[in-house]
Amino acid sequence: MASTSSLTLSQALLARAISSNASTQSSDHRLSLSTPSFSGLKLTSLRSSTSCRPLPTRSNRSLRVRAAAVETVGTAADTSLVEKSINTIRLLAVDSVEKANSGHPGLPMGCAPMGHILYDEVVRYNPKNPYWFNRDRFVLSAGHGCMLQYALLHLAGYDSVQEDDLKNFRQWQSRTPGHPENFETPGVEVTTGPLGQGIANAVGLALAEKHLAARFNKPDNEIIDHYTYCILGDGCQMEGVANEACSLAGHWGLGKLIAFYDDNHISIDGDTEIAFTENVDERFKGLGWHVIWVKNGNTGYDEIRAAIKEAKAVKDKPTLIKVTTTIGYGSPNKANSYSVHGSALGAKEVDATRENLAWPHEPFHVPEDVKEHWSHHIQQGASLEAEWNAKFAEYEKKYKEEAAELKSIITGELPTGWEKALPTYTPENPADATRNLSQQNLNALAKVLPGFLGGSADLASSNMTLLKMYGNFQKDTPEERNLRFGVREHGMGAICNGIAHHSPGLIPYCATFFVFTDYMRAAIRISALSQAGVIYVMTHDSIGLGEDGPTHQPIEHLASFRAMPNVLMLRPADGNETAGAYKAAILNRNTPSILALSRQKLPQLPGTSIEGVEKGGYIISDNSSGNNPDVILIGTGSELEIAAKAADELRKAGKAVRVVSFVSWELFDKQSDAYKESVLPAAVSARVSIEAGTTFGWEKIVGSKGKAIGIDQFGASAPAGRLYKEFGLTPEAVVAAANELC
Amino acid sequence: MASTSSLTLSQALLARAISSNASTQSSDHRLSLSTPSFSGLKLTSLRSSTSCRPLPTRSNRSLRVRAAAVETVGTAADTSLVEKSINTIRLLAVDSVEKANSGHPGLPMGCAPMGHILYDEVVRYNPKNPYWFNRDRFVLSAGHGCMLQYALLHLAGYDSVQEDDLKNFRQWQSRTPGHPENFETPGVEVTTGPLGQGIANAVGLALAEKHLAARFNKPDNEIIDHYTYCILGDGCQMEGVANEACSLAGHWGLGKLIAFYDDNHISIDGDTEIAFTENVDERFKGLGWHVIWVKNGNTGYDEIRAAIKEAKAVKDKPTLIKVTTTIGYGSPNKANSYSVHGSALGAKEVDATRENLAWPHEPFHVPEDVKEHWSHHIQQGASLEAEWNAKFAEYEKKYKEEAAELKSIITGELPTGWEKALPTYTPENPADATRNLSQQNLNALAKVLPGFLGGSADLASSNMTLLKMYGNFQKDTPEERNLRFGVREHGMGAICNGIAHHSPGLIPYCATFFVFTDYMRAAIRISALSQAGVIYVMTHDSIGLGEDGPTHQPIEHLASFRAMPNVLMLRPADGNETAGAYKAAILNRNTPSILALSRQKLPQLPGTSIEGVEKGGYIISDNSSGNNPDVILIGTGSELEIAAKAADELRKAGKAVRVVSFVSWELFDKQSDAYKESVLPAAVSARVSIEAGTTFGWEKIVGSKGKAIGIDQFGASAPAGRLYKEFGLTPEAVVAAANELC
Repeated sequence: MASTSSLTLSQALLARAISSNASTQSSDHRLSLSTPSFSGLKLTSLRSSTSCRPLPTRSNRSLRVRAAAVETVGTAADTSLVEKSINTIRLLAVDSVEKANSGHPGLPMGCAPMGHILYDEVVRYNPKNPYWFNRDRFVLSAGHGCMLQYALLHLAGYDSVQEDDLKNFRQWQSRTPGHPENFETPGVEVTTGPLGQGIANAVGLALAEKHLAARFNKPDNEIIDHYTYCILGDGCQMEGVANEACSLAGHWGLGKLIAFYDDNHISIDGDTEIAFTENVDERFKGLGWHVIWVKNGNTGYDEIRAAIKEAKAVKDKPTLIKVTTTIGYGSPNKANSYSVHGSALGAKEVDATRENLAWPHEPFHVPEDVKEHWSHHIQQGASLEAEWNAKFAEYEKKYKEEAAELKSIITGELPTGWEKALPTYTPENPADATRNLSQQNLNALAKVLPGFLGGSADLASSNMTLLKMYGNFQKDTPEERNLRFGVREHGMGAICNGIAHHSPGLIPYCATFFVFTDYMRAAIRISALSQAGVIYVMTHDSIGLGEDGPTHQPIEHLASFRAMPNVLMLRPADGNETAGAYKAAILNRNTPSILALSRQKLPQLPGTSIEGVEKGGYIISDNSSGNNPDVILIGTGSELEIAAKAADELRKAGKAVRVVSFVSWELFDKQSDAYKESVLPAAVSARVSIEAGTTFGWEKIVGSKGKAIGIDQFGASAPAGRLYKEFGLTPEAVVAAANELC
Repeated sequence: MASTSSLTLSQALLARAISSNASTQSSDHRLSLSTPSFSGLKLTSLRSSTSCRPLPTRSNRSLRVRAAAVETVGTAADTSLVEKSINTIRLLAVDSVEKANSGHPGLPMGCAPMGHILYDEVVRYNPKNPYWFNRDRFVLSAGHGCMLQYALLHLAGYDSVQEDDLKNFRQWQSRTPGHPENFETPGVEVTTGPLGQGIANAVGLALAEKHLAARFNKPDNEIIDHYTYCILGDGCQMEGVANEACSLAGHWGLGKLIAFYDDNHISIDGDTEIAFTENVDERFKGLGWHVIWVKNGNTGYDEIRAAIKEAKAVKDKPTLIKVTTTIGYGSPNKANSYSVHGSALGAKEVDATRENLAWPHEPFHVPEDVKEHWSHHIQQGASLEAEWNAKFAEYEKKYKEEAAELKSIITGELPTGWEKALPTYTPENPADATRNLSQQNLNALAKVLPGFLGGSADLASSNMTLLKMYGNFQKDTPEERNLRFGVREHGMGAICNGIAHHSPGLIPYCATFFVFTDYMRAAIRISALSQAGVIYVMTHDSIGLGEDGPTHQPIEHLASFRAMPNVLMLRPADGNETAGAYKAAILNRNTPSILALSRQKLPQLPGTSIEGVEKGGYIISDNSSGNNPDVILIGTGSELEIAAKAADELRKAGKAVRVVSFVSWELFDKQSDAYKESVLPAAVSARVSIEAGTTFGWEKIVGSKGKAIGIDQFGASAPAGRLYKEFGLTPEAVVAAANELC
């Protein structure tokens, strides 16, 4: 029984590698991870879950090794070997960038010492199962320095980065893209490159650990116990999102978050003196962090080690280790200048660097003693995982219920029948704002989904996001599930990406006014690109919010997310549609969902359904026959009611009218041509759409002969009813447009 | 001569009020400012300038007053009157919110003391000319508290906020919208509400002052000398954009920026304890600010005054005055709670507040002695302006050239013939990246436009934004024009909004990679809404950037800005089009422009022109006759070359092919129907578009029967040529699509 569970967990974690990449070409060759064979028990089917992650297939012998107990990971090599290893990392980076003639050698060269110490002595991982649950997480927030991470993964024995992968750095379909991408390279936890977000992801990862540890650890079994490490540079430090997230990390007391600030004084525009002279240490102290300064990050290995030790001893605060380094360390003519930041060194300087570092080896060479030293990580990693599996078996024996819940968080398998928790409504139910109906769903889902947690950017009582049966996740109550992000939208989104990538079964949601997606758009894009199924609960979704005025009224936002790849943009019209939107959001674990919800009350419309929402667009009422209405009225969200009212009028006048709810363009796009034709027959060109947002993009739905009613200008400050009238979003306008067309 | 100039200035500044509001309905009744008549000299025509700002028309008698010299503004009333005035402010806010049954009474009640002291004793302004150039600038970054500002403008005698305006708070077409909007309410400098951006705008305003003062002040005539004041709250403090901008303010040593932090410990979700426990003072010290704490912001008037005095004495650092207040001060049952933040108090609590503050007056009443006291600001303001006009006359006498330059910055009148500076190209000119061509334009424009300045978010050498004849704007070289924003996109955008709103003739540009508009989208939206003609220089505009991969490759960005109201989205294809894009950007002073520019080289295409760009879409080549081509190929930016190549192929095969450059949808939309028909004749449905971005929205241009070629997924990391091939952006693909259609 116990080993079954452990097996299931390992498999699930490996399986996570093979998530379908909606945005790129076939990735067959990229991921060839394997079924762990250290146990002969049969697989439980992951395919039955909704995560759509096929199982791995290659055998993985290293996991058969029963390693000796590993009390601490830190078994340092002797100093000359350490230096050799560090120079190996530097040269692998130099050679890869040189071969690609593109990339960023400077950071890997400067950060190689801390990188070596982290991956060789500190970070706990199993290279043959990058998804082992209790691994330490590492985030390279300064993502342009990805060759550092690739070199480390290569040395550590990850299958994802082999010599050929280094030689294919930044090439088509390689596993070593220009910035770290979790969906391309097992061993990479999150997708970074856009600066500042990585450290915020790390805050999310550390939050997840603290939360899960508080919920599941027992005095006799600390089943969850890992650190989150992060390297960030000057660029990340300047970004506001980093400050937002670090303020929260301090507030939450994330003691197991240890961030290394690569303090090299160089950014693309030259010396940071020209734009960045603040006292970072003082700022971080103000944010509630423990701050340590390693003055010699180039060769002060023991200083780095001591700093990590000190950081681990501080349990109630995150730690920033400022490590002063020389960018491009080792390059005799380019080190300490912006020229080494983002370009290949050039053949001559590569030679000079080899000479300077006394490196006689050919490109991409890893010296035998370095290889030999690093090889112990395969056995060590297998041991770490095996020990943890044994620990989990013990845990499961003693704490059955908790183990089952934890397992579902680790694997991402949704509990059977979870969707039955979703509320349904009839037209007799009272009118209500979809933000309120959303809260009913959130609370229903929190009861059945153990990994469901989230909150708002200081608008909980407006976004209606509180989970009533839980308290606030805080420093001293980390087991709770209501996250309080403060007014930090961008940090919130990036933190949720970290939570989502921590465990397949963690389903974070976050909330603000829909218009303020503008503040967090960069994080939402990373959700989409990195396949994080974060749920964005976006209320006050139109001029229907009224008096707050145009600064608060979304106009272009629906269109702007419909245009973004791998996003589910959902705009439900009432209770059933809100439930349907949540169903779609929960099922699509590799795609973020954005729910646009009303501030104002909306009636429960006849004809709406959860099943309808799952198809994206569907008929809610129709008095035509033969799939040939006189006119099709199409609405979304709060305007579906207007379309329905207009239909009533038109039908009174003898028209055959179909009303279509177009709640999600992306879901509709996925339907069969036959289904699409059954909803929007090609022969019917008389189509009127109404949506309280820009008409941009609606030509695709209503066609050249149809009419899109919307708002192609900014809104205004006035009561909502008045605005709808003034901006022409009325049943009368729909009727008039329809009469022109049919 | 001297008075002519002064008159011209005053008129221009007043005229600024009447900027056309692209986004809302007629604002006739809102702005009825007047031609100043204190001088009988005739008007110089502002209409001949490109700013499209009609002249004011109502007479303004107060300017006739020759006031006594005002050495300092601070002439405090006695304390009981001060308290009465403060309570007037509180009650005006309470009454307005109550009547609207919507709004935020909490901040105005808590900040009334600092508000009173600022507007009655400190801030230098002329209520009858809100656009007097040398006024102090005030920004309410916590924009939801706008009733504070409206009450102050009302008391101070601004025509824009009269009693009826207060009674129409948050109503349709009122001048008192739900958040401060510079385009609705003269006296409001910038548009706030989205938190954190206001303080960044204030940084931009203070930067503008420091820059202009350094350029124009003389030892014997400090013609530019004003402060920037700002009130920000806990919400602003949490936002990353505020930290970004404040880090720069510290770096730049903006000594005349004084920010009041309304430290009331309450945000919408309750006590800030739940999400915001950082040490703000320490953070700001780290950012290089002078920090003062006013412990009693409720009644410690002298403390507030002393703090301002101290702040003014610190000349090399911006100052943060943390003012601890009680939100909703005066409300006996709701003060110090979130319930007073964003809702009307309710009739009962309004009564209780009146009783508590011993306020016997009816709603909206301003006691006579308060009115009488404040009335001196009309005369005082007139004097301040008159003195300054005299000073300017002196200045002009002595420093003719500088005065002319400064005048053009103050009025926004572009120098005659400026557009001749724009470079033009022939097909014989070498291929080049539009980012490089952009730099040629930037440098050409900087020579002829005295208010042209800007920079990049640490990508100057990639965005190609350096002005070669200028140095860096820095603490000790503020006269220079290259701004170094560091990696702070959002702060950069918001700072540029502040610069643009400082003076009509300041034309800020800012730059980053196009994909990172996601970081600054909220600021770009405020540019659009608040009619700030910021120029966004956005390079690396597609998968054509190559190896950096999908985190850096824009896909949905063109569509997302085409969907945003009042934005000019421009994607030039070569040198002439880049020049045309800059021409359009400079001419549209009330609309931000976004230039999407290539990293990769592009040929100078036959048929492109500046004039063509001004029409948004135009024919670059055509072998058809009778406005009836077999097919129309439409391209933008780097893909126009592909369309042209495909046309060559198709013509070889005997087709009549038109190639259209569609550089700006918004400019094309503004053309006559006849012109549109001449470019895209309705009868020709065979249309193929090609653009290295999402096809979302292109149905509008190519029609239901046309074909849009683009990328509806995320990009990948590989050399650009390979990506174009793999994603099907090739002449062959265009030829194939065309052959299917004709």
